[in-house]
Amino acid sequence: MPKRVDHDERRRQIAAAVWRIAADQGLDAVNMRDVATQAGVSLRLVQYYFETKHNLLVLALRYLNERSEQRAATRIAATLAATPGGTSTRVVLREALVEFLPIDDEHRDTLRVHLAYYVRSLNDPELAAAFLTDETPLEDLIAGMLEQAREAGELASRIDAQREADLLVSGVNGLGMDLLHDRRQLDDVVATIDYHLTRLFGDP
Amino acid sequence: MPKRVDHDERRRQIAAAVWRIAADQGLDAVNMRDVATQAGVSLRLVQYYFETKHNLLVLALRYLNERSEQRAATRIAATLAATPGGTSTRVVLREALVEFLPIDDEHRDTLRVHLAYYVRSLNDPELAAAFLTDETPLEDLIAGMLEQAREAGELASRIDAQREADLLVSGVNGLGMDLLHDRRQLDDVVATIDYHLTRLFGDP
Repeated sequence: MPKRVDHDERRRQIAAAVWRIAADQGLDAVNMRDVATQAGVSLRLVQYYFETKHNLLVLALRYLNERSEQRAATRIAATLAATPGGTSTRVVLREALVEFLPIDDEHRDTLRVHLAYYVRSLNDPELAAAFLTDETPLEDLIAGMLEQAREAGELASRIDAQREADLLVSGVNGLGMDLLHDRRQLDDVVATIDYHLTRLFGDP
Repeated sequence: MPKRVDHDERRRQIAAAVWRIAADQGLDAVNMRDVATQAGVSLRLVQYYFETKHNLLVLALRYLNERSEQRAATRIAATLAATPGGTSTRVVLREALVEFLPIDDEHRDTLRVHLAYYVRSLNDPELAAAFLTDETPLEDLIAGMLEQAREAGELASRIDAQREADLLVSGVNGLGMDLLHDRRQLDDVVATIDYHLTRLFGDP
C-alpha cells in the first residue's frame, strides 16, 4: 500500500525551509529553488503547493504564527498543570511574557524571521497587507489577564490594563530584539519583567 | 576665488542619499552607483570618500545617529527655553520619549533606516560590530532623568529607575514600530506614554 501523502505536512516542511533560510540569510535570500533544496523536495512541488514566491512567504508566515501560538499555549498549559492547587494570574502572565523572548534557538529563529518580515513589509505593500492586521491579539491577551487579576482583587484598581499591556508587550519585544544581538542578558530582561509584575501585583 | 570644498558637508550629502535609498527600498538596495546618482555626485567621489560599500554603510549610520542626537538635543533645549521659570523633569522626559516616535517624515525615515540596519546586522557580523555597542545611552539618559526626579522628590522612592527606563525605552521603540505600519495611532501611543508618566510622577 503506497504511503498516503500528507499535503499539510509537506507544506509545513517547505514552510520550515523558508524560516531557516530567512533566519540564516535574511528574507531577501528566500527563493523557491533554494527553499526546495533546503526542504529536500523538487522545485515543481514547491510551485505546485505555493504557486508564487509571494504566496510562499505569506503562507510560511501563517504557519510560523500558528506554531508560535501552539508553543505558547503548550507552555501555559504546562504551567497550569504543574500547580493543581491553582496558579495565580501573575505566574501565567510571567510565562506568557517570557515566551515572547528568544529563550532558545527555536524562539530566536522565530523572532529573527518575524523581524525580517517586519522590515521587508515596510517596502512591500502586498506583504504588509498579509503581515498586518488591525488586531493586537497579544496586547489583548495580556490586558485580559490583567483584568482577570483585577477582578480577583490581585491588582490595584486604578491600573489601566490596556495601557499596561501595550507597554509590556512592546517593551518585551524590544528587549527581545536586544537579546538577539546579545546587547542584554536573558537574566536581566527576566528581572525587568519581574520588577514590573511586582509593581502591578505587589511582592510575590 | 574657487569655492572651498567642504568635505564634511559632501560626506553628509552622500550619507543622506544612503538614508533615502534605505528608507524607500531597504538597505539591500543600497549600492555605491545609486548612492552617487541620488546624491548628484560622481561614483568616483563616493569611492574617494568612503572606499567600500561597508564603510559607506557604517559611516552613513554614524551620521544618522549624530543627526538624531542633535535633533533630540534641540527639541529638549526648546522645551527648556519655552519655560524660563523652570521645567519639571516630567515634561523633559516626555519630550525625550516622544522624540523616539515617528512623529514626522524625517523621524519616520530615521526609524525605518535604523530597523533596516538592525535586521541586516543580524546576518552581517561586520555591520553588527559597527552597529552595536555595549552601551545603552538612551536607557541611561532616561534612567538619569528619573533619578534626578527622585532626588527632587517627584517620584516614589521604591521605583527602580533603570528597570523603568529599560521598559520605557524598549516599549516606546516597539510602539514606534507599530506606528510605522499604521497599526496604532500617534495620539494613542502618546496617551500610553502619559499614562506611564502619571504612574511614575502622579497626576500632572
